Formats: sequence, structure tokens, C-alpha cells
Amino acid sequence: MTADDAADWWGTAVSRIEPNRIELRGIPVQELIGSIGFGSMIWLMLRGERPTDRQAALLEAALVAGVDHGPHAPSIAVARMAITCGVGLNNAMASAVNTLGDSHGGAGQECVMLLTEILDRDGGDLAVAADEVIAAWRARGVRYLPGFGHRFHTHDPRRDPLLALVDAAVADGVVPGGHLRAARAVETALNRGRSRPVPMNIDGATAVIYAELGFPAPLARGLFVLSRSVGILAHAWEESQQGRRNKGPIPPAIRPTFLS
Amino acid sequence: MTADDAADWWGTAVSRIEPNRIELRGIPVQELIGSIGFGSMIWLMLRGERPTDRQAALLEAALVAGVDHGPHAPSIAVARMAITCGVGLNNAMASAVNTLGDSHGGAGQECVMLLTEILDRDGGDLAVAADEVIAAWRARGVRYLPGFGHRFHTHDPRRDPLLALVDAAVADGVVPGGHLRAARAVETALNRGRSRPVPMNIDGATAVIYAELGFPAPLARGLFVLSRSVGILAHAWEESQQGRRNKGPIPPAIRPTFLS
Amino acid sequence: MTADDAADWWGTAVSRIEPNRIELRGIPVQELIGSIGFGSMIWLMLRGERPTDRQAALLEAALVAGVDHGPHAPSIAVARMAITCGVGLNNAMASAVNTLGDSHGGAGQECVMLLTEILDRDGGDLAVAADEVIAAWRARGVRYLPGFGHRFHTHDPRRDPLLALVDAAVADGVVPGGHLRAARAVETALNRGRSRPVPMNIDGATAVIYAELGFPAPLARGLFVLSRSVGILAHAWEESQQGRRNKGPIPPAIRPTFLS
Amino acid sequence: MTADDAADWWGTAVSRIEPNRIELRGIPVQELIGSIGFGSMIWLMLRGERPTDRQAALLEAALVAGVDHGPHAPSIAVARMAITCGVGLNNAMASAVNTLGDSHGGAGQECVMLLTEILDRDGGDLAVAADEVIAAWRARGVRYLPGFGHRFHTHDPRRDPLLALVDAAVADGVVPGGHLRAARAVETALNRGRSRPVPMNIDGATAVIYAELGFPAPLARGLFVLSRSVGILAHAWEESQQGRRNKGPIPPAIRPTFLS
Repeated sequence: MTADDAADWWGTAVSRIEPNRIELRGIPVQELIGSIGFGSMIWLMLRGERPTDRQAALLEAALVAGVDHGPHAPSIAVARMAITCGVGLNNAMASAVNTLGDSHGGAGQECVMLLTEILDRDGGDLAVAADEVIAAWRARGVRYLPGFGHRFHTHDPRRDPLLALVDAAVADGVVPGGHLRAARAVETALNRGRSRPVPMNIDGATAVIYAELGFPAPLARGLFVLSRSVGILAHAWEESQQGRRNKGPIPPAIRPTFLS
Repeated sequence: MTADDAADWWGTAVSRIEPNRIELRGIPVQELIGSIGFGSMIWLMLRGERPTDRQAALLEAALVAGVDHGPHAPSIAVARMAITCGVGLNNAMASAVNTLGDSHGGAGQECVMLLTEILDRDGGDLAVAADEVIAAWRARGVRYLPGFGHRFHTHDPRRDPLLALVDAAVADGVVPGGHLRAARAVETALNRGRSRPVPMNIDGATAVIYAELGFPAPLARGLFVLSRSVGILAHAWEESQQGRRNKGPIPPAIRPTFLS
Repeated sequence: MTADDAADWWGTAVSRIEPNRIELRGIPVQELIGSIGFGSMIWLMLRGERPTDRQAALLEAALVAGVDHGPHAPSIAVARMAITCGVGLNNAMASAVNTLGDSHGGAGQECVMLLTEILDRDGGDLAVAADEVIAAWRARGVRYLPGFGHRFHTHDPRRDPLLALVDAAVADGVVPGGHLRAARAVETALNRGRSRPVPMNIDGATAVIYAELGFPAPLARGLFVLSRSVGILAHAWEESQQGRRNKGPIPPAIRPTFLS
Repeated sequence: MTADDAADWWGTAVSRIEPNRIELRGIPVQELIGSIGFGSMIWLMLRGERPTDRQAALLEAALVAGVDHGPHAPSIAVARMAITCGVGLNNAMASAVNTLGDSHGGAGQECVMLLTEILDRDGGDLAVAADEVIAAWRARGVRYLPGFGHRFHTHDPRRDPLLALVDAAVADGVVPGGHLRAARAVETALNRGRSRPVPMNIDGATAVIYAELGFPAPLARGLFVLSRSVGILAHAWEESQQGRRNKGPIPPAIRPTFLS
């Protein structure tokens, strides 16, 4: 009775634990260990079923692409500073993952919403739908469309290989292709009449993949957290081996007095 | 000059970012996307070189095994409660990952240290070395040896398949096998004269894998964070779809007044 | 030159540190130690000037009121679970503070916005303005107006003493009183024709105080974090003295098998 | 019965919540609101009883002293970077508070332990006890004694006013004075024969206060978290008003290419 109450309150379809038995998404864990890759396991845990090999490969390509963007990214800088303060790797990773918010890690999530909105509005001419949705987002005060443009990459090196994989997946019927077409329609609309184009960035290219694979928008952020956690760990670990204590942002040689 | 100072302060061998160029561990990112799996990418980022397929498969088996242990684990319960409080998935994941401390996620790290200490002391008879190291840890006040025993699994279903993979890897020369032997020596020592054995648990079995693959002890914790983040995300996402707000630990029906 | 760049990037009016000199909001720290209370210091740091004694007392009353609401609140439960996982008090507090999001700690912030919107719309009849703004929020899909109603307190015991302090402050000209009137107008509107009233809750009452004192809406959340951090620390510390490891949400006696 | 189980599992002496009733440390909240200062409330919540006015004033002096040390401190830098990433103030504060670990916020905790160890060993000559304990800590590999010395303040401006308050409290019988004497004995021992002294720093001076007031060592860290949270909030809030997005550590003008 009361165990039933607790079971209901904490009930889950993700995992089931009993003495000497662990089921993940209904599958005994011993059937998974050694027979499923880590990327496929991520898919299984989030969606309740195993992906095909092609689906898993496309997901892993997106996860690989987002692991790191150097120590200027707040997520990486925070990880490196935190680990010098005498906390565990898990704590440094938490402080860093925590910064993957609306502006940093949430662009992929919003880009999925943008592309889905375009597809939903598409009445036969995707370019028109893209124009209308872009105009609507701009009217709401959105200055930078999520997933497009980059602070200093004029052409993000991750865009082309990711899109090429989606093209191949569309050609082979692995994914439907709508979000890819919507993303390209946005690119075309943004670049019309501009000498310096506003190309799709990593958030856009991975959003296309996550959406094509059927992940709901918020999971684009969740998957980015899994991906970037790898770079966060690599940087925190490297920094921990260098022996600094309480590392601040500015090196001593050029540190202004007031930051001393 | 000053850019040099900043470059030195934030210098890293993990990644190098330039306009339109991203190198991860010295490899242009476009050469990695689509050609390296996520597990191998984790290895590359942490160690600077690619694993063999067999090494990557062994690493992924350990990562798969640790993703989840149900909502009674604090890491999972925290994630599910946090996401009902109106924060992003990244924030809920951060609160949860943050709890993977010395008692929860750190057992693997300590188990690597235990096994390495046994190997370092081994003068020809591993059983003797195990006995001596166990006695030394006990003398220091350690009550539960990290990586051995479980609150309610008498036989953790993840142990056997993981050790079978290590056995095969040793047989094929993929890993040396010392930490595996040390772990079994601890098991034997702990079970001597006991009717209810104290078997290796998941922290122990994954510690064996991480150590056999050459990861330093603190990375056993870091890798567990990557692994458990998958379950954390799956649970936070599931909970977010159920519409509860500010979920507390005890269901209303059996909630004592003072917790109301 | 370059130190100037760094000074600009990290420039702040909050504090200025030089060798053997620390200024907080322009005041040498030695002039503050022993001569300013903690509540006044919070005000000084956030606003750049010292409060009057009456302003400080009103702020402290709000900070006192929000420190704790028992272990069923996710912020408190998370703190207690986290500290059993082998992390520091600072880490347990971080995991807990992190959950004070839009649904848990953000209601005060939204309530300030609600009240300010009513005042801005007030064309002479505050009751009409309240009705219109409530209707507009409802039309936007807001189901629970932030700052009003409670899950199980029919009359939150913190409401009356807090409002009495604001009444006195209005009477003495310490605060203008507009937000207080707006909050009461909302209460009246919500209770019209209802047998079971929907009274102002703690988020509403403290929002009135913060707004009357001139704090911008987001600081209502920030101040709540400072307040609740006290309860979070008290609970984490108490739990740490009880010796549990990896505390889950459900006690063993009524734990369903799948949560074991 | 089962509610009893839950009551036991989540039982606490800190607070008791019932419909329309909130007790904090056994006192109805309405008796506290408006009649107890925030500093005294912190004491009450942590210790279960109210402080005297003098005790509260001494505690508040220590809390005031630690609020901020400028944006070079990792805790402050992290807060400022995090808030530019599109997260809430509570999240930015969590990432920052999380870094107050053994090297950053934990020095006070260790200093209390150091001073207490000296007092416990004191057999009549405190200078001898200090020498012996310092030698023992050095033999354990401790390079920097917690609470003494500073990276660039040769004389921390917070030391003298804090110690003067303790001196006065000792003179008036408010606190016993042992930890203060032990701290001065350490200073004397460290400075013997040195031209450049190693004076007590803020962690040491506040540790003296917390210990004199009877707080256990881990609460020195917890109290520092409460104190520094004020500066963290002030900086995060200021940064949030400046409109930067995803702020990295190095300003663009002196950012090396690889950090771009």
C-alpha cells in the first residue's frame, strides 16, 4: 500500500532495480554490457528503444562535434578555474555544465523549435515559410537566430561534415530531411543580399541532426550537455595536473592592480 | 607579448581554436566527425591519442554499465526533483552530477588506488600483498573497502559480464591483467571464512577496466560522471514530462504532517 | 594598455582590490567591519549605498522569513541528500541553491513584475488595473499567479507579520506603499466570490518588501537565494552529523523493491 | 506507521511545518519576523538557540569581512561568466558557491582545526604547542598553513579590525580567547627570523571568530559560503546588467588566436 505510494511517486520507465537485477528500459543490464555502444545506450535510455546503426552513427557524429570549443568558452573556463579550488572532478564538471544555459548550450534547443515552426507553417513553399517565421521571431525581439552565425568563425568547420552526413542519411531514408531543408532555407534567407554570409553554426548543424533523428527540442540541450561534458572533463583534468591554486581569469603579468 | 601571457595562462593541449579551424588533440575536427565513435572520442580527449577498437569497446562497456541505478540513488533523485523547480536540463544535471562525491561516485577512484597499491606491494604473492594492503586500509579506519560489497545486491549483475570482458581482453593481450588479478585477490581475501560473500560491485568492476586501460585513478570518477550523466538526463527528462512542480521526496499520501 | 583591457573586461563598481587595500562599494573594508550589520552589507553590496536602519530592518525581516520551509522543499531535500554523498558543505549548498528556479525561488521575481505591471497600468482605480493585469496573465496561460496561494497553508503564518511591517513602514514614509496596495488588490480580486480565499504567500509578501524597498525584480530571486541558503546550510550540517551515506528519498521500511 | 517511517527518515530539529504553522528551531516564525536580525537568525538556525547581541555582532563582523575579494577570485569570476550564459541568478550563484572548496573557501575550516589542535596539545606553553603542531602539519606535507599568508597582501586590511573585535570580546568575557591566542602563537612562530612576515589572513581571522564563538570547524566553510554569496550575487547582478553573452576570461583585444 504505502510502498505502492512511494512506487508511484518515484515510478519510472527508465530503470528497474531489484536485488541482483537491474533493468534499463526493460532490458537486463547484463544483456547490454559489451553488446551496445555508448552512443546507442544514450539513445536507448532517452527513448526506450535501441537505434539502428545508422541512427546511432549520426547521433554520435553530433556528440563528437560539440565536445569542446577551447578555454574561452565559459563552460571550459569555469571547469578549469573550479578544479583549482580544491573540489572534486564531479564538482568542477557540475559548475561548468551548469553554465550551458539559454545563451551557451540552449541555442540548439531553440534552433529545433525554429526549424519545427517553419516546417509546421510550410504550405508548399519552404522559403516563404522560413521568411515568415524569421520575421515573426525578429518581431518578438530575437536579434540572433539560434543556430546561425558565429562570433568569429565565418565558416564553422563542423558545419559541412555534419550536413554531409545528414544528406547521406536522407538519401538512404534514415531520416526524413525536413529539418535539414528548413535549416538551409533559413541560411538562404539570412544570406540574401549580404556580402558576408551568416552560415549555420554548430548549434544549428547539431540541431538539424537531433531533430531529424526525432529528439524533442529540450533534448538538444541535454545531448549537448553530454557532449560538452567530455571537453569539460578533459580540460578540468589537464588543469588539475598543472598544480595551480585558485586560478583567476587574468594571468599575473597583465593583471591590473585592482584584480590582483 | 600580452597575448602570449594569456596564451600561457590558458594554454592547453586539449584543443586549439582559430578562425574557421578547430583542432581537438591536434586533429582537425572535420577529420573526426563521422569517423570516430563517441567512446573513442572520450578516450582521445582525455589521453591525446586514439584507442584501438578493442580498447574503445572495453571503455564503452564500463560506461554503459554505470548509466543508472534507479531513483533511489541520490544523483538520480536530485535530478528528478531539480527539474520540477523550473530550471533547465543543464541545471538539473549539474545539481545531480555535483553529488557524485567521495561516497557516491568516488568509490571507483579509490578502488583504483587500492588495486594499484596492492600491485605496487606485490613481491611475488599477490594474496599476501592484498592481505597487507587490506589490513593497512582497515588500520586507517576504512570500514567498507571501495569497490566491494553492496547494500542489497548480494551479486551485482554487472560484475560478471564486465569481468568476462576483461578476461577476454587479457587473453588477447589488450590489457595487462594486473588490476584484475588484484581485484580478485581482494575478493578472495574478503570472502575467506564468510558464509555471505562480499563480492566486487560496479565501482570495483569498472575500476578494474579503467585501471587496466591505463586511466589514472581520478579519471575513474570523471568517467563515471560521463556515464551516470546519461541516466541523470533520462530521468530528468522523463520527470519533466510529468508536470509536477517542486517535487519533494515523500508522496503526499504517506507524508507526515511536518513534511507537508 | 593591456592591463587596461583586462581592467575594462573585468571592471566592476562592486569592489576594488589593491595590495593591502580592499574597497567594497568604494568604502575601505576596515571601515565596514564592526560598524555595519550583515543585512545592511547585503544592501550596500547590491545597491552601492548604505540603507537607513528602517530600510535594513525591513530587508532583514524578509530575509529571516524565507530561510526554511522544511525538508519537503526540494532545495532542502537536495541539500540533505547531497551532503551524504561525500562532498563539501559548499557543494551540497550549490546543488540545493541551484534548484531555486522559476517554480521554486523565482515566484518572488515574477510577483514583483506582476505588481509593477499593475502599478504601471493604474489609471486611477487600482482594482480595475489589477483585474486587467490578472486577466492578461491568465490569457497568457499563467495558471497560478506568482505570490498567491499555497499548496497547503490556507493562511501562511508569515504573511501577516510581514505585511504589518510594510504597513508601518508606509505609515512612517520609509517606503511608498504602491506595491503593497497592488498586492492587496490582487488578493481582493482573487478572493472575490470564493469561499476558500487565495491569500498572499511568502513569495508575495517578500516580493512586496523587496519591491517597496526598490530592488529590481531579479534581485527578489537573488535575495531569496541568500535567505534560503541559511536553511540549506542548517539542514546540510544537521544531516552531515547523522552519518548516513548516499541517502535516498524513501526510507528503507517503505521502499518499494524497485527503489531498493 | 509509514508516515512515522518517513518522519524518521526526514526528521529534523531545524524546522517543523504544519498547515498554517511554521516553526524554526521550535519558535513560531511569526515571533521571529521583525524581531530578530539576519545574523542572529543564521546563528539560531545553525545552533538551535539565539545568540546574545555581542555574539551576533561578532559573527556579523566576520560575515561582512568575507563578502568579496574582487573578480580575480574564482568564485566571483565564475559567477560573472555564468550569468552571461543565459541562466538564472540562482544558477550563477550555484556554480560560484560550488568553487568554494578546500583551497578557496575551506582554509577557514582547516584553520579552525589547526588552532584547536594547538589548544588541545597545550601543556602550559602555547608557543611550544604551536611549534609542535606546525611541525606536525609540515611533516604531513602541508606547505601553506591555512589562515596565514597571502598571495599579495603583505598585511591584509581585514586582519586588524577583526582581531580588535575579538580582543574586545575577550576582555568583556564574550568569548574565551583560546583560539585567538593560538592564532597569534602561530603568527609569532611563522614570523620568527623572517624579514617578511607571514601574517594571519582573512581565513585565519574569521576562523578565530567562528571558533571563539563555538562553531565547529566545517561551519567555518559554511559561514564563508553565506558571506561570499553576497559578493557573488552583487557581481552576477552587475554583470547581468551589462549585456554580454557567453563572457570568456580574456578580453578580445589581448585574446590570443587560439582563444578566439
